[in-house]
Amino acid sequence: MPRPKIIVCDVNETLLDLAPLKKSVGKALNGREDLLPLWFSTMLHYSLVETLSDNYHSFGEIGTAALMMVAKTQGIDLEYEEAKAAIVTPLRSLPPHPDVVEGLKALKQNGYRLVSLTNSSAVGVETQFKNAGLIDLFEKRYSIDSLKKFKPHPDTYRMVLNDLDVQPEEVLMVAAHAWDLAGAENVGLQTAFVKRPGKTLYPNVPKPDYVVSDLKELVRVLKNQ
Amino acid sequence: MPRPKIIVCDVNETLLDLAPLKKSVGKALNGREDLLPLWFSTMLHYSLVETLSDNYHSFGEIGTAALMMVAKTQGIDLEYEEAKAAIVTPLRSLPPHPDVVEGLKALKQNGYRLVSLTNSSAVGVETQFKNAGLIDLFEKRYSIDSLKKFKPHPDTYRMVLNDLDVQPEEVLMVAAHAWDLAGAENVGLQTAFVKRPGKTLYPNVPKPDYVVSDLKELVRVLKNQ
Repeated sequence: MPRPKIIVCDVNETLLDLAPLKKSVGKALNGREDLLPLWFSTMLHYSLVETLSDNYHSFGEIGTAALMMVAKTQGIDLEYEEAKAAIVTPLRSLPPHPDVVEGLKALKQNGYRLVSLTNSSAVGVETQFKNAGLIDLFEKRYSIDSLKKFKPHPDTYRMVLNDLDVQPEEVLMVAAHAWDLAGAENVGLQTAFVKRPGKTLYPNVPKPDYVVSDLKELVRVLKNQ
Repeated sequence: MPRPKIIVCDVNETLLDLAPLKKSVGKALNGREDLLPLWFSTMLHYSLVETLSDNYHSFGEIGTAALMMVAKTQGIDLEYEEAKAAIVTPLRSLPPHPDVVEGLKALKQNGYRLVSLTNSSAVGVETQFKNAGLIDLFEKRYSIDSLKKFKPHPDTYRMVLNDLDVQPEEVLMVAAHAWDLAGAENVGLQTAFVKRPGKTLYPNVPKPDYVVSDLKELVRVLKNQ
């Protein structure tokens, strides 16, 4: 595999730890912290439902709607403003996983250009990166909100390729989500899966090019390639 | 609203009761019947991930993969063949909800032409309808497997319109899934939501034209229109 020039990082879960959301979402759902994966999966599903039926709301708005739905189907009373507060504020102040700052710095030092690509809004990810101390580590931030289509729509990855004027095989997509890597692989990008807690591969598509425990392992693996 | 000529019924959950799956999926997940909604949501999400990244597996294959993923993230050992057995066999022998046979017969008697449109495979839905005693109630069955794109992709609804040579506004889509109706509405179909247990509307899109408790209520509502 050729050495990638550009590393594109997904943001939520890949770089930032969703743990604080577990608490706030759990609180909104009467203590049912176990429902976090169902909420997240519902949000992801409806982001693609909107993409495929020519609708668009921000990831935060879809997350709020998804939380309302989970509450409703579980017989839990929840007001819209309460659902929104449970998601939007904590989402914007998530801490980075412990390996992230060191890992990103090492990747930069090793000559890779770093950009991010997220389903969060442009304003959202700017706030997220400021709060997490990651703002200066990336050359550029991309959000799907300029396209109004969510990952893994192929146009989202192509937007990055076109803007940077690079070929797919020169780019490595790094994500903790099998669905994100399936979309990147479809467009011809190299792919690296980061095994964050509760995340796993999707058995129906080819394995990513790299599977690592964290960004520090990614640095080592790329060096030894 | 004009009186619809054609009624298009979604199948899983809308006509057929998923309750037997709760048992088999729960058993595969060490008794965790509470994980059924997460499994179903993961399956739906990945059906759209495949659609958006130019992959295709049958709904049963995606359901099996999704069950493997849920097991893995919950730390439960599960073999592929065991996961498959937990889904495919029960999925093909789901009972109809109690209102379905009477409701469909009444719709036919009232002059509506009935067809079905499902994310299940053509072979799958034929077996499902035979086992549920619904096979003779429908003029035609449509599966997304001829397109290899899952609902709510607009092409799935347009396939039905083109094949029957009807206009969107002449058709009423009936489903227990907000995402299915969002896709149908996008293509211009009339929409009816059936409130099956654990199902709820998606707050970010317009309300369906009809919201009913079951098919018998749909019969009454259409008559009084």
